[in-house]
Amino acid sequence: MSKPSQKIQIVTWCSPDKVGLLSEITSVIAKFGGNLLEVIQFTDQKETKFFLRAEIDLEEVLKVNKVKLNKSLMVLAKKHKSEINIRDQNIKPKVGFLVSKEGHCLSDILWRWESGELPIDPEVIISNHPNLENIASHFKVPFIHLEITKKIKEKRFKEIYSKLKSYNVDTIILARFMQILPNWLCDIYKNKIINIHHSFLPSFKGSNPYGQAFNRGVKLIGATSHYVTPELDEGPIIEQEVRRVSHFHTKSDLIRLGKDCEKLALSKAIKLHAESRIFIQREKTIILGD
Amino acid sequence: MSKPSQKIQIVTWCSPDKVGLLSEITSVIAKFGGNLLEVIQFTDQKETKFFLRAEIDLEEVLKVNKVKLNKSLMVLAKKHKSEINIRDQNIKPKVGFLVSKEGHCLSDILWRWESGELPIDPEVIISNHPNLENIASHFKVPFIHLEITKKIKEKRFKEIYSKLKSYNVDTIILARFMQILPNWLCDIYKNKIINIHHSFLPSFKGSNPYGQAFNRGVKLIGATSHYVTPELDEGPIIEQEVRRVSHFHTKSDLIRLGKDCEKLALSKAIKLHAESRIFIQREKTIILGD
Amino acid sequence: MSKPSQKIQIVTWCSPDKVGLLSEITSVIAKFGGNLLEVIQFTDQKETKFFLRAEIDLEEVLKVNKVKLNKSLMVLAKKHKSEINIRDQNIKPKVGFLVSKEGHCLSDILWRWESGELPIDPEVIISNHPNLENIASHFKVPFIHLEITKKIKEKRFKEIYSKLKSYNVDTIILARFMQILPNWLCDIYKNKIINIHHSFLPSFKGSNPYGQAFNRGVKLIGATSHYVTPELDEGPIIEQEVRRVSHFHTKSDLIRLGKDCEKLALSKAIKLHAESRIFIQREKTIILGD
Amino acid sequence: MSKPSQKIQIVTWCSPDKVGLLSEITSVIAKFGGNLLEVIQFTDQKETKFFLRAEIDLEEVLKVNKVKLNKSLMVLAKKHKSEINIRDQNIKPKVGFLVSKEGHCLSDILWRWESGELPIDPEVIISNHPNLENIASHFKVPFIHLEITKKIKEKRFKEIYSKLKSYNVDTIILARFMQILPNWLCDIYKNKIINIHHSFLPSFKGSNPYGQAFNRGVKLIGATSHYVTPELDEGPIIEQEVRRVSHFHTKSDLIRLGKDCEKLALSKAIKLHAESRIFIQREKTIILGD
Repeated sequence: MSKPSQKIQIVTWCSPDKVGLLSEITSVIAKFGGNLLEVIQFTDQKETKFFLRAEIDLEEVLKVNKVKLNKSLMVLAKKHKSEINIRDQNIKPKVGFLVSKEGHCLSDILWRWESGELPIDPEVIISNHPNLENIASHFKVPFIHLEITKKIKEKRFKEIYSKLKSYNVDTIILARFMQILPNWLCDIYKNKIINIHHSFLPSFKGSNPYGQAFNRGVKLIGATSHYVTPELDEGPIIEQEVRRVSHFHTKSDLIRLGKDCEKLALSKAIKLHAESRIFIQREKTIILGD
Repeated sequence: MSKPSQKIQIVTWCSPDKVGLLSEITSVIAKFGGNLLEVIQFTDQKETKFFLRAEIDLEEVLKVNKVKLNKSLMVLAKKHKSEINIRDQNIKPKVGFLVSKEGHCLSDILWRWESGELPIDPEVIISNHPNLENIASHFKVPFIHLEITKKIKEKRFKEIYSKLKSYNVDTIILARFMQILPNWLCDIYKNKIINIHHSFLPSFKGSNPYGQAFNRGVKLIGATSHYVTPELDEGPIIEQEVRRVSHFHTKSDLIRLGKDCEKLALSKAIKLHAESRIFIQREKTIILGD
Repeated sequence: MSKPSQKIQIVTWCSPDKVGLLSEITSVIAKFGGNLLEVIQFTDQKETKFFLRAEIDLEEVLKVNKVKLNKSLMVLAKKHKSEINIRDQNIKPKVGFLVSKEGHCLSDILWRWESGELPIDPEVIISNHPNLENIASHFKVPFIHLEITKKIKEKRFKEIYSKLKSYNVDTIILARFMQILPNWLCDIYKNKIINIHHSFLPSFKGSNPYGQAFNRGVKLIGATSHYVTPELDEGPIIEQEVRRVSHFHTKSDLIRLGKDCEKLALSKAIKLHAESRIFIQREKTIILGD
Repeated sequence: MSKPSQKIQIVTWCSPDKVGLLSEITSVIAKFGGNLLEVIQFTDQKETKFFLRAEIDLEEVLKVNKVKLNKSLMVLAKKHKSEINIRDQNIKPKVGFLVSKEGHCLSDILWRWESGELPIDPEVIISNHPNLENIASHFKVPFIHLEITKKIKEKRFKEIYSKLKSYNVDTIILARFMQILPNWLCDIYKNKIINIHHSFLPSFKGSNPYGQAFNRGVKLIGATSHYVTPELDEGPIIEQEVRRVSHFHTKSDLIRLGKDCEKLALSKAIKLHAESRIFIQREKTIILGD
């Protein structure tokens, strides 16, 4: 994985499968002088669907050619009814965080971001509790406190949406946000909202998963990062992590050990998303490279 | 973990907790000259229950003293309303296997047994299909084929039970036996039947767990070994194993990768059981040492 | 990963990197009607080297076209100074096993092969000890016992080579063969000999790795599968596995637990090799897909 | 693992093995009314050495009895030539951190401490670079910057020692401190200095372990926490963690992924140390419970 650069362009492509498709796409790229650094192509044979992620080095390509190259790719995509996405590697997702009281995921992500691990632009942190403001200020990210009560819930989410828009947020990360999003917000940010669920889904859906895990006496606990859909805890799974536990671990031990899973699973999901490696096919993810 | 020996005795003890209990027990052992090699004691504070597993070296103890020692321990246990179990380390569980068509777990266990990894005595293999006979004959374990159809199911299980008794089986291992045991058999061999379920329970209970896992798009698959209770797939969990999977793995890949989890989780459970390390407390296991 | 089929062809390509290369290759494939099922391309930017593995579905391609397609690919490869390899997916490596006394790896591989996990053709098992003959006969693979003593070592390896040739062996698996191969044999089967070393290389090179691990008090033990080169334990690493261990594990416990690592690391390496997924670049492996 | 409390006392004991030892110890505890919550006893049979860790609930014990109990235990320990340690569970190690430029381990530990995961008292952070001061100030721990150059190295370490003493530090954590400690300091804080080495020891000792790992092409990278001895990277290993890596990971990816191992291995080691679970026997650790 090379350092982010505007000389490198990432193209993702998803369309019905067809003989000669990769040849057509790579011929266009070659014609304008693009050099392929990493290509991963996968055909879902059952669905006869073609998925492609390519990193193109444009070092040798004049600016004018880059425009032509991308135009040609768009034309080709239209012809093949493909969903295509083209972006410079150094254009990062503009992230808005929704959080509550628990800061371990938020601070972990921001530490990784600060150290250069995560190619994202944190734009704003919105919380229904005031207590993570110190993390926000430490990392110099704007913090907005909006209390949510049952009565004003709908209104609040409209305000949240308005704030997200005003910060040009294109990707939402629920870093232990203990509220259920309204369906209309899930629809607006379809495949753009990443959640961390503190269990090894589909085990222990819903609330209090560590209590459920403790009562069931499992020997491994886990965490699951997934895209958010209107169906609670049913969105496409991106990454899962587990850790071994024992009878002598209390519920609070499970919570403590689970946090390590949560941090790893969420930060990995954000990295994959930010590198445009994730495709969604029905209710599953296809992840090209890692 | 020392080599099995008749000079070493394993004592397990489970009773209500009480001040001075470990002192009373170890004083009896010391009085007769037993040397403690490994002691693990755990108190479930919520249930105020005391669990103990001790390995006692009797090298220095005359045969007559050993009898007296054990008698004294039994008297003490009675006084404290304890479930106690005392056995020579070289007395092994007499195991009966119930299997169907899939041989990977059976052969894995028998290979481990042959190489000295598992302290068990395989007595008999009973199957509702004939095709694992060659494994049985390779390891020189008696093989009994009893076809099971819906109509004669109840009758068959009575025959199975009669066979198990005639081989003095005290521990049943379901090594991918695709039949549900009748409740009366679960009751007779309570806490003595170990099953391997081919999923990361409680995810994907019931049949076809790999199909369920494939459809849900999980990123880790697993297997769970547990004691069998009348409630299907709800018995106390002994061990769980997982492996990472991806979108490009087909259902048959999940089955292939899952087999490695099944073999590891089942053989580990058998080892823990055969070494008297597992206690059952409500619907959970407490495992002392490993 | 689709079922092995003669309708599917696997092409691997390794050459200096160049703009337009993937386009040229895929254009040839498209021209003759080949459909790409899985393409993984990786450019080592430091070495400016281009690596490609492609699975091509030839369902729609007439037999005569297949010949033309492959000819055209060979011509293209020559033009680009590429190492190319083309084979039907159902053509399997012809494997010769070299073993000594320990049977756990050999039997594990043969069980996986028998159950359809490993796309290999086991041709012959050669051992310097007689005691694994029963495994060979169980799986109906020819077994040759050739005692090796210091004095006749060189002579013996010539006999071994002659036997391997007579069985048309193209891939050698050292399944716990405790002898060092002569350099000339390493050269003849360059990148075609897979060994399992019972440590987490480069820790604990040489003999008695479990003893070394025990003395050092490590908390994880491992195993490493690698290609064999004349430099002992220095060949390109294919796969590594680890397991957690503790102070109470004796050296014989480490050996027991290590075996599970050995089996997993070796069988995975064989699978990757047999699917033509491994490229060797200097002293490292590049593995496309998994 | 119960919440830290002054009602709970932790006793560790290490002495030559002897028949009746556990009975003698537990009788003393019972005599004064102490209730055992968790007892782990392990005998190293090769060395005939007896190791014990016990958690004693003193809820029912009057203050005066507690003094008598501990006195009696000390007398018993003297009689058996035992190293004994007795402390209230809520007395925590007073920790001094030595760091350089890399802040990921330091901040991870302080986050865990702040959230209640780690029972330590951070007293002071000493660094040879100024750039982690913001972490220190965020967590309100004193920060001292002492530049170290070759010429004044010896003098500097005397200053460091003097600072550590003035803060009553009893445990030193090297959280990526890139300097070698002088032998006299290792001796003063024998078995009280914990280091994190950024490789899977004993692989890749010395400097630049990630570069070494990259060049060797390993498939798993790791980190090792260990006690510091005058022999560089040779002290008793406490904990090790690994993560899977691939050919496409650059050296900077290995560094990134390795950090997760470092954080997990170091924080686990600190927890075990702070809970008095680690015994050192020759050059190895014995860890009772976890």
